[in-house]
Amino acid sequence: MTTTTTIARPTFDQMNLSTGKRTRLHRLMYEHGPANGTLMILPIDQGLEHGPVDFFDNPESIDTDWIYRLAVEGNFSGIALHVGLAEKYQKAYAGRVPLVLKINGKTNIPADDEAFSPLTSSVEDAVRLGADAVGYTLYVGSPAQDADLAQCNDVRRDCERYGMPLVIWAYPRGAAVKAKGGQDSLYAIDYAARVACEVGCDIVKLNEPKWDAVAAEKLPKPYNSLQFSDVEGLRKVVASAGRTLVLVSGGSKMGDDATLHKARVAMEAGCVGLIFGRNMWQRAWGDALSISSRMHDVMTNYGQRA
Amino acid sequence: MTTTTTIARPTFDQMNLSTGKRTRLHRLMYEHGPANGTLMILPIDQGLEHGPVDFFDNPESIDTDWIYRLAVEGNFSGIALHVGLAEKYQKAYAGRVPLVLKINGKTNIPADDEAFSPLTSSVEDAVRLGADAVGYTLYVGSPAQDADLAQCNDVRRDCERYGMPLVIWAYPRGAAVKAKGGQDSLYAIDYAARVACEVGCDIVKLNEPKWDAVAAEKLPKPYNSLQFSDVEGLRKVVASAGRTLVLVSGGSKMGDDATLHKARVAMEAGCVGLIFGRNMWQRAWGDALSISSRMHDVMTNYGQRA
Amino acid sequence: MTTTTTIARPTFDQMNLSTGKRTRLHRLMYEHGPANGTLMILPIDQGLEHGPVDFFDNPESIDTDWIYRLAVEGNFSGIALHVGLAEKYQKAYAGRVPLVLKINGKTNIPADDEAFSPLTSSVEDAVRLGADAVGYTLYVGSPAQDADLAQCNDVRRDCERYGMPLVIWAYPRGAAVKAKGGQDSLYAIDYAARVACEVGCDIVKLNEPKWDAVAAEKLPKPYNSLQFSDVEGLRKVVASAGRTLVLVSGGSKMGDDATLHKARVAMEAGCVGLIFGRNMWQRAWGDALSISSRMHDVMTNYGQRA
Amino acid sequence: MTTTTTIARPTFDQMNLSTGKRTRLHRLMYEHGPANGTLMILPIDQGLEHGPVDFFDNPESIDTDWIYRLAVEGNFSGIALHVGLAEKYQKAYAGRVPLVLKINGKTNIPADDEAFSPLTSSVEDAVRLGADAVGYTLYVGSPAQDADLAQCNDVRRDCERYGMPLVIWAYPRGAAVKAKGGQDSLYAIDYAARVACEVGCDIVKLNEPKWDAVAAEKLPKPYNSLQFSDVEGLRKVVASAGRTLVLVSGGSKMGDDATLHKARVAMEAGCVGLIFGRNMWQRAWGDALSISSRMHDVMTNYGQRA
Amino acid sequence: MTTTTTIARPTFDQMNLSTGKRTRLHRLMYEHGPANGTLMILPIDQGLEHGPVDFFDNPESIDTDWIYRLAVEGNFSGIALHVGLAEKYQKAYAGRVPLVLKINGKTNIPADDEAFSPLTSSVEDAVRLGADAVGYTLYVGSPAQDADLAQCNDVRRDCERYGMPLVIWAYPRGAAVKAKGGQDSLYAIDYAARVACEVGCDIVKLNEPKWDAVAAEKLPKPYNSLQFSDVEGLRKVVASAGRTLVLVSGGSKMGDDATLHKARVAMEAGCVGLIFGRNMWQRAWGDALSISSRMHDVMTNYGQRA
Repeated sequence: MTTTTTIARPTFDQMNLSTGKRTRLHRLMYEHGPANGTLMILPIDQGLEHGPVDFFDNPESIDTDWIYRLAVEGNFSGIALHVGLAEKYQKAYAGRVPLVLKINGKTNIPADDEAFSPLTSSVEDAVRLGADAVGYTLYVGSPAQDADLAQCNDVRRDCERYGMPLVIWAYPRGAAVKAKGGQDSLYAIDYAARVACEVGCDIVKLNEPKWDAVAAEKLPKPYNSLQFSDVEGLRKVVASAGRTLVLVSGGSKMGDDATLHKARVAMEAGCVGLIFGRNMWQRAWGDALSISSRMHDVMTNYGQRA
Repeated sequence: MTTTTTIARPTFDQMNLSTGKRTRLHRLMYEHGPANGTLMILPIDQGLEHGPVDFFDNPESIDTDWIYRLAVEGNFSGIALHVGLAEKYQKAYAGRVPLVLKINGKTNIPADDEAFSPLTSSVEDAVRLGADAVGYTLYVGSPAQDADLAQCNDVRRDCERYGMPLVIWAYPRGAAVKAKGGQDSLYAIDYAARVACEVGCDIVKLNEPKWDAVAAEKLPKPYNSLQFSDVEGLRKVVASAGRTLVLVSGGSKMGDDATLHKARVAMEAGCVGLIFGRNMWQRAWGDALSISSRMHDVMTNYGQRA
Repeated sequence: MTTTTTIARPTFDQMNLSTGKRTRLHRLMYEHGPANGTLMILPIDQGLEHGPVDFFDNPESIDTDWIYRLAVEGNFSGIALHVGLAEKYQKAYAGRVPLVLKINGKTNIPADDEAFSPLTSSVEDAVRLGADAVGYTLYVGSPAQDADLAQCNDVRRDCERYGMPLVIWAYPRGAAVKAKGGQDSLYAIDYAARVACEVGCDIVKLNEPKWDAVAAEKLPKPYNSLQFSDVEGLRKVVASAGRTLVLVSGGSKMGDDATLHKARVAMEAGCVGLIFGRNMWQRAWGDALSISSRMHDVMTNYGQRA
Repeated sequence: MTTTTTIARPTFDQMNLSTGKRTRLHRLMYEHGPANGTLMILPIDQGLEHGPVDFFDNPESIDTDWIYRLAVEGNFSGIALHVGLAEKYQKAYAGRVPLVLKINGKTNIPADDEAFSPLTSSVEDAVRLGADAVGYTLYVGSPAQDADLAQCNDVRRDCERYGMPLVIWAYPRGAAVKAKGGQDSLYAIDYAARVACEVGCDIVKLNEPKWDAVAAEKLPKPYNSLQFSDVEGLRKVVASAGRTLVLVSGGSKMGDDATLHKARVAMEAGCVGLIFGRNMWQRAWGDALSISSRMHDVMTNYGQRA
Repeated sequence: MTTTTTIARPTFDQMNLSTGKRTRLHRLMYEHGPANGTLMILPIDQGLEHGPVDFFDNPESIDTDWIYRLAVEGNFSGIALHVGLAEKYQKAYAGRVPLVLKINGKTNIPADDEAFSPLTSSVEDAVRLGADAVGYTLYVGSPAQDADLAQCNDVRRDCERYGMPLVIWAYPRGAAVKAKGGQDSLYAIDYAARVACEVGCDIVKLNEPKWDAVAAEKLPKPYNSLQFSDVEGLRKVVASAGRTLVLVSGGSKMGDDATLHKARVAMEAGCVGLIFGRNMWQRAWGDALSISSRMHDVMTNYGQRA
């Protein structure tokens, strides 16, 4: 377990974790997956967020049991999904792969201008199902932020009460975000990272910021003239996240090299790990296992003690 | 009890049912109606959803007691209706036909652009009335999905608490659904099937997807070029529903042959059964009994152990 | 006590009333007013719904104590009003005329396009005040039906808990109702009758449906071509109400003959009684007593055992 | 204690007051101020409703302690204000002037089209602070009446529970009121008086209705042709208020004669008293004491036993 | 400890503080920072309110631990921030710098026309974390004042219950404020000061009013013609705040002289202290310590006994 990243990630002591949160994060970070203080989470909430269309590339992926087998055989740190899937598929794998219960979500059928994800389950459900964390989507900058921050506050309080780690999917979204340069800008993602930290999550899931010269014209100063490489962009948001650990989203499917490159960049930038879904299960079984294994190789270089 | 369908339906073990849910589903699936693991549900919530206009074809149907007699003499697995009807008509038939209490609904007088069905009763009412399941309408894709998913979550939690099976009427609806090809498309129904599974119901009620070349131009890829037969369409949504059992809606009245064909297609596609209302009680008494009996004949071929 | 109507009204047994509801309805139907199983309710909620303008025709009517004297000396089955009037005027007449506490309402100052009546009191208030029923206005077809059905459900549950009969003022209302032929059409009132029954009230208050050839052009099929006499219209809605008893509203003031004709038509159609306000108290004292007495004569012909 | 008004005001017995309400109203009406069954309330909620602009005419009035001294030395029946002022200024005067805790309010910065006043404190706060009544603003006719009537119902229930008298500031307000002739018309104030009575307050605070020939063209019949003198206008609304006692608002500052005339008119019309704020504290100390004293002289003529 | 200001600030006795509130305010005002009855609060909620953009000028400021060191070594009276930062950074400094938990907030990504800040934590969280006050943003004049005043009332009640001092960030905001001359006018800030007092906070945080001849044309009378110096403007709002202590915000970064001038003006006007954030931590370490020290020198002149 050696660390080559130049940025030390926050320790459990620095994060001031309660006993319950520390116990559960230890399970995710030191007992499953790479088990060296990094995280490889397998998300499977796309069926709700995007619909079954995401399962066309690899028809087997529509079977959640297949996803669970991948989570176990690919040695992931945890699997993230909604209550309906957890109830029906987790039991056979209980104890073999930690559960990150995604507790809010929505479809993408209506427009995203006032994006908001209502609860589909609760922190209590997570406790009942033996989960080791909950996931919550916060749409930073949405005109519906009133309802979102309030709901997030309720979830945070329950996480505090039960010692349940809180992972925020911090997504810039909504009409105002579009008008100010879009959801992939450093401006938007940097802001999202900070908001997630201030509202009190333990881990924040972010997309990689992109520099887009055209969209940049709409960005607030000084972001409109702030060019950056992939690793620089992520290092900036890691700094803004403070003592909140950062997970990087995979997004839509890429080739093997691009996938592994993205993983390395994330770890170099000081992220705690990856939450790649489509880049895993849109591959056939063998390819999925193979890319998982190669991601493990990457993670080996970025271990850190608790 | 032999099964000819090529798709095995989820078993009680696979569905990971609690003792209460298993007891009640056993009653619906193995003690009433075909009693071979299939379902024939008789719904009578159209008076609220469409108004008394649905009773014009067969004036006797306006009398809910007539519907109950049909449910019993036609040997249905259960009857689905709202609390007002259950309170006033169930007692005389208590124990003779299981009750599926429909706990939310609305009129169709205002436009459907932001469709949402508020609660008309509760899971507690269902327990009090001796029901064996509750029915909940979720308008997938409606701009009101915020309120709908949140309300559905409350219902799910109560179902969990009381061991009450949850049947979701998963209907694509609302302005965005219209704009993306309409509520009968495979895109929309496939998405609805998956949402119902992810939010945690035990059984999902769906309409049969239709291929419509004109509407298809508005569909998202790859659905816009995905033609399919009746059975193929249903098999697709059965797969998307995962370990959630699928019931097929009857819709508006058809001839006998078309009705029976629809039933056979549903069962061939791996559905657990049918929830035909107008196709039953818009027929005169003798015809209604006769078509019920012929549907039983169909169901005989699709039994499956618990 | 003989019955000449050709339609038998639902009995207490058929209505499956709880002990509490049966006790209270017995008081309204067999201990006060005609006391033969019919109802003559005197409503005085117009001050809230229309303002004091309704009291101009008979200035004495602005004094609620005058109304109470009329309720007692005119031998009404009950008096229906809001909590403020009940608190200040009922005590002197306690036990002498049953109270139907009207628990929601609104002014008619803003437009009715999204009609909704918030609660002004509760079922618990009704219990505390010794009421024998509560009245609830449900605006069937209003775009605000989400809030209305949900609020009605809460009231229904409390009525169930306390054994309090629930009378729904089922009024078609709102922009969509206007666009589909108006609030007095058979289409609208027929739908309202059914909704009231499905959501679980014991008695529904309805207006008499009117045939209007011009408005009919906007009606949904087959109502647009369905002409009917007064008694036919009411018989239709009585059938749609099922095992829910039907009260007919009086509406604005008519002459004596028209008033008595309306009463006879209602009873012939199978209604349980009348809820005439302005037609009673917009008359001077002597005339009001006289018309009440003549209405009693009508009711004598429509008695029915519990 | 002699009464010259031709209209007897409701007695405590007629109002059917609970022991708690009667005890507290006795304190306001028979132990402080004129102490002869009339009321002189000093309101100081204009800082919230209008801003500090109301304190410019008499700069001393910005100091709430100055207002309290006026309430005590001017011998008022009570002082009406919000929780922040009560917490910081009442203690020094506890027991010397009764507190009417104003429990809802708003600023006048946004437009009044959908006027609604949220709670700033509660009936429980009033109990804790030793108040003898609470004040609640109800905007009669506002499009926000749904929320307002519902909130008012909650307050009424708490007043019932704690035996706390409820004073409603019944103000016609909102776009529909404007369109129908404005907030000062007899139509609007008459309606407001009746609504306050029906929703169950003990005392209603009203403005004096004004006849305005131009605005009258927009009034509903028969108000559009109903001219009246000051005393006739108030007598009409006193009648509509029924067994609810009526307080008349002072409004913006007038000369001494006009102020005293308004007071006399109110008492002649059968009101229980006056709630004059700006007409008191926008005068310098000596003038304020003087006008208070002269108002006491007026009240002497309108005493009435409990 | 001598006082040169001509306006005596409210004492604890005048403020009528409960034992809990007095204990905690004593800690902020007499045990930390200047400890002479004045306040120097260091706010660090800009990451949520403005985004990480505020940290560009001094990159070290993005590290909240750096801010905490400044709070301790600069000898501030307290540090104000959100729950996420408090959870992760306060522990190492517990007892060394009092915590003012900021319990609501929002991003500035959507427009401010209907400004409202939802809760991000609670008064109970403040108690649990050992805080000595809570901070609440109230957007005075926002069209969302309904929700804001109601939420503020809940917070005030909890503060009362737990003896927790309540600091209101009283900010004029929203479309109507813009239309009436803007958020920096004396009209707007004067109104905000009074509202904060009436709704019951202990300390109000205000911006310094500015005279702007152009914007003044939109101001209500008599503010449109009311010119004033810096100290006059603040004295006016201090008077409107009554027995509520006033803190002055720093706003965007100024030079040293301007910063110290602003501090002196505030204290001369009778404010209790300063809450300067960007003017502190947008300076490099040495400069930040230096300006803090010079502010302490200013505060020495304005001590006052409790």
